[in-house]
Amino acid sequence: MSTAAQIRLRPLALADVQIGPGFWGRRVAINRRATIPHIHRKLLETRRIQALEMKWRPGKSHRPHQFYDSDIAKWLEAAAYSLTTHPDPKLESRVNAIIRLLGRAQQADGYLNSYYTQVEPKRRWSNLRDMHELYCAGHLIEAGVAHFQATGKRTLLDVVCRYADHIDSVFGPGKRTGCPGHEEIELALVRLYRATGQKRYLKLSKYFIDQRGRRPHFFDAEAKARGEEPGAFWGRTYEYCQAHRPVRRQRVVVGHAVRAMYLYSAMADLAGETGDDSLMAACRRLWNNLTQRRMYITGGIGPSFRNEGFTSDYDLPNDTAYAETCAAIGLVLWAQRMVNLTGEARYADVMERALYNGVLSGVSLDGRKFFYENPLAAYGDQGTIRHGRARRQEFFGCACCPPNVARLIASIGTYAYSAGPGAAYVHLYAAGEAAAEIAEQKVTLSQHTRYPWDGQVSITVTTAAPVRFDLMLRVPGWCRRWGVKLNGKAVRAAVMKGYARIRHRWADGDVVALSLAMPVERVQAHPKVPQDAGRVAIQRGPLLYCLEQVDHAADVHAILLPDRSRLTARFQPRLLGGVTVIQGRGLALARTGWTGRLYRPTARRSTRPIRIKAVPYCLWANRRKGSMTVWLPRA
Amino acid sequence: MSTAAQIRLRPLALADVQIGPGFWGRRVAINRRATIPHIHRKLLETRRIQALEMKWRPGKSHRPHQFYDSDIAKWLEAAAYSLTTHPDPKLESRVNAIIRLLGRAQQADGYLNSYYTQVEPKRRWSNLRDMHELYCAGHLIEAGVAHFQATGKRTLLDVVCRYADHIDSVFGPGKRTGCPGHEEIELALVRLYRATGQKRYLKLSKYFIDQRGRRPHFFDAEAKARGEEPGAFWGRTYEYCQAHRPVRRQRVVVGHAVRAMYLYSAMADLAGETGDDSLMAACRRLWNNLTQRRMYITGGIGPSFRNEGFTSDYDLPNDTAYAETCAAIGLVLWAQRMVNLTGEARYADVMERALYNGVLSGVSLDGRKFFYENPLAAYGDQGTIRHGRARRQEFFGCACCPPNVARLIASIGTYAYSAGPGAAYVHLYAAGEAAAEIAEQKVTLSQHTRYPWDGQVSITVTTAAPVRFDLMLRVPGWCRRWGVKLNGKAVRAAVMKGYARIRHRWADGDVVALSLAMPVERVQAHPKVPQDAGRVAIQRGPLLYCLEQVDHAADVHAILLPDRSRLTARFQPRLLGGVTVIQGRGLALARTGWTGRLYRPTARRSTRPIRIKAVPYCLWANRRKGSMTVWLPRA
Repeated sequence: MSTAAQIRLRPLALADVQIGPGFWGRRVAINRRATIPHIHRKLLETRRIQALEMKWRPGKSHRPHQFYDSDIAKWLEAAAYSLTTHPDPKLESRVNAIIRLLGRAQQADGYLNSYYTQVEPKRRWSNLRDMHELYCAGHLIEAGVAHFQATGKRTLLDVVCRYADHIDSVFGPGKRTGCPGHEEIELALVRLYRATGQKRYLKLSKYFIDQRGRRPHFFDAEAKARGEEPGAFWGRTYEYCQAHRPVRRQRVVVGHAVRAMYLYSAMADLAGETGDDSLMAACRRLWNNLTQRRMYITGGIGPSFRNEGFTSDYDLPNDTAYAETCAAIGLVLWAQRMVNLTGEARYADVMERALYNGVLSGVSLDGRKFFYENPLAAYGDQGTIRHGRARRQEFFGCACCPPNVARLIASIGTYAYSAGPGAAYVHLYAAGEAAAEIAEQKVTLSQHTRYPWDGQVSITVTTAAPVRFDLMLRVPGWCRRWGVKLNGKAVRAAVMKGYARIRHRWADGDVVALSLAMPVERVQAHPKVPQDAGRVAIQRGPLLYCLEQVDHAADVHAILLPDRSRLTARFQPRLLGGVTVIQGRGLALARTGWTGRLYRPTARRSTRPIRIKAVPYCLWANRRKGSMTVWLPRA
Repeated sequence: MSTAAQIRLRPLALADVQIGPGFWGRRVAINRRATIPHIHRKLLETRRIQALEMKWRPGKSHRPHQFYDSDIAKWLEAAAYSLTTHPDPKLESRVNAIIRLLGRAQQADGYLNSYYTQVEPKRRWSNLRDMHELYCAGHLIEAGVAHFQATGKRTLLDVVCRYADHIDSVFGPGKRTGCPGHEEIELALVRLYRATGQKRYLKLSKYFIDQRGRRPHFFDAEAKARGEEPGAFWGRTYEYCQAHRPVRRQRVVVGHAVRAMYLYSAMADLAGETGDDSLMAACRRLWNNLTQRRMYITGGIGPSFRNEGFTSDYDLPNDTAYAETCAAIGLVLWAQRMVNLTGEARYADVMERALYNGVLSGVSLDGRKFFYENPLAAYGDQGTIRHGRARRQEFFGCACCPPNVARLIASIGTYAYSAGPGAAYVHLYAAGEAAAEIAEQKVTLSQHTRYPWDGQVSITVTTAAPVRFDLMLRVPGWCRRWGVKLNGKAVRAAVMKGYARIRHRWADGDVVALSLAMPVERVQAHPKVPQDAGRVAIQRGPLLYCLEQVDHAADVHAILLPDRSRLTARFQPRLLGGVTVIQGRGLALARTGWTGRLYRPTARRSTRPIRIKAVPYCLWANRRKGSMTVWLPRA
């Protein structure tokens, strides 16, 4: 396998992908109709948008916070994606109103930060380590690019280009030294470069990446300049922000998980743009460490609330899992870059795992409530401690997750397809249409499927003229039996890096049918994961399942799953908007004979049979509040 | 069962109990030879003792801390107990040196606190909630009583009486209102009353207890007087210090676990001294809540590091268990009071459980290293997060646990025996001798036993003249088969509140042999404890066992215990100073087939047989650093 860094595939533009009715179509609709307006309302209620009016003065209430600009920017990005696929004048006027505020808030030199300009005007760029200044800038840049691509208007793009130019005038060789404590601007600058063609943005991104972890350490010098002890900060160590050593020498995913994902995404972007194999090699090493030792089965990452991030290999506690929604989103961002760089399906496997489980669990089915943390076990009657919380919230003081999940769902189409030389790739299965230019021919792929509820996928090719290309269909890592038919006849497809390759001269109306066997599976974790020893999780297709208290007469944490119990899948159209549940027999630990006792000798197994019903993990906590568990003890 | 509060039994005085060679004799010797000198050295190294010289001035280093006096007081108490059973001129001169410092540090009005006098001389009694002023006073009082009882000298007793009198002049009806944030002085004042006969100390104790949780809340008023928001403190809620409601209306053990235990101990003391049935009823309710819903199988209590205390019913995580050593010690203190108030062995059962497991785990076998937290699972390669730590430390910045365990072990004899009307009680089995006056006759009970390594206990009665009394031998709650012989002949003994009653007219040389069957048991937890579902712990007699990594080729967290696997006990004289281990066959999760994978479908069980060797939990972490686990998944 070559490790040479180059971009092999290009994701289809969002405008060219239409997600039709089905699992994702529904989520996109909820996101558009509920989540995006809800977040806008919350941004107003919490006076984040008003902070852009630049009327705050010392002593007044509602002091702007250093994260605010990023919350607004991510909402703008989500709105831009939504406008791409679903024009909406009301939404557009809300967007334009904020863009006007941003334009007015921008300083003459291009600087744009509502916190510093109003609260600490003399302290710009004095604390890159902690103050999220470049992080906010990065999100504004992403919003500017997304808005330009959605509308063709340069209103926000021009603002962020001026800001990026200002930043470029401040930092770089022969100028100020620096790199951000919270990564984000690096990947944003690559996006800006791709949208504008201006190489200076790519160079500035590379500068920030290359500065990271250098000795003498910039964060030390910066702290001393403020008159502070270098080590005295929230993160405590530079591992926290992946600045403990130069990025090419990093081998283990450490620190704050969201920061890590944004950094690695930028490293992948730069590797692809610059052909830097050493960056690509670092990405591969970090990827393997993450996905083989530090990732929940949900695709959630970062088990600890202490650093909102990573701990040690195989440390994956379930009830105290932090697994921030933003971190799973960051993993999707990185995975998409890796799959497009390499054409290897294993990256898309992780992308799918995170999307269907650890990301979607972050937002309620009504689109108006969010999890910041995504534990794999929750105790419904939990009181004061940080174990899995069983209820989503409408918003957060630190509100990164809601607009992040909104921008990802709004742009889901672009994660589903890529075009490569003489090939069209399907990474994700979702009803809808994708238009691509392949082998210099415009073709449309119309996908019909009920995925993930079943594994049948039919793709109809529309083309003005016959065209030869490879249709590359991902064979998911979870799938152990599959087949392909072309126009009704079984064909043998070679598997290339995890994709079934259907090499064909396509005529208009050709139909490919992919059939993925989707049995109910019991999955176990690596024996080095102490919390999951002797336990299994239930999975079917890409969906991980869980037991919720509302469906069970016995405490879900006291239910064992016998190895021999048959588990069957059944679609329930009225449950949770239509969902395939898994049913079978479990064993509930008997509650008799315990009066006055907390411990007792085991005489017999003392269990009773109980019907179990598992629902997709991503849909938990949408009904009555109660306990939940993913990993069941085997019996 | 009567709930009337009265003292039924009196523990034998420490001077009247001699602990002979054996399990406890060895621990007492280590405590005397290693732990007590080690802590003295640490008190000097950390300049705690020097803080009593009252030479600190603002701007100087080594500022006294508000806990320091209590650390010194507990060491003095431990030293006093040790002097009681083992005179030692060198130790006595160290004790006297500190007493001289305390005498000089005492202010003219009797006030004695090294922190306030030197650091905040104007702020005495301004923050009872947080500043441990009365807590330190309580420990000084306990030390004063212990020193007086050990040596007959009033040097320290006079100091603490003056201090208690000063406190009595400040607080009480018609004087200042108040009660401490960290309980301790309440039980100390009862001790001082018992030692001196001065009723005012008992009344002051009752005053503090009765103030607790009253509305309007004293802590609110006190905070406002300091110009602070009432809720803005470390504990956040008054549950933290059991001041959320009056003590007689408390039904659930809440908040900081050590504080809770000291409070309940004082409530039991007061119930006994005053015949207050409402206090006794509260004690019984709280006891049942604690031992039936909130106690680890080790007798450790307080699962959360956040409040160093309690969370919710059945929440007993193993790897993140806080289970502070001091909290298990506090449980022993409370249990001893409850057993002496009621004559019910169930309290002694918990006392024994905590002593042999959650307390003893707090100190290394060499007596010079300590656990503050006592988790039930540890991951040996653990990095940055708060999971079970696999290595004890020489001391702590907050050094409450080391001198606390030292004072408990030094006084263990007084927990073993009590005298009641016409009865001698044996609560704990340990080789040695106890002298008691029963039915107005001096008798000596000589105990011969290898307990807890086996369940054979022989007691020889020495008496100048025949005497009729009931010998009450505790039948431990863990024991399901037992028998008694008197002078070699089996006798039927009635069981009274958990004690086998041997009613006899005792002649000199009579021998009672108690035989307690001590098979290896698998124990399960209540099905509502989510962390232990599908798991068993190994117990034999009072000792809980664990698997340590050093004894196993497979990761201990990947070892399952089949229900049918036979477990056998075997004494290994050279291991850990002589210890009974439990051996048998387990199943280790196979490590093959995992290359590059973190999750995979379960095809077969994929385990391999492995020999397991369990060692007593209290002795873990005395060899090579590594993982440990108590609760094994059943297979």
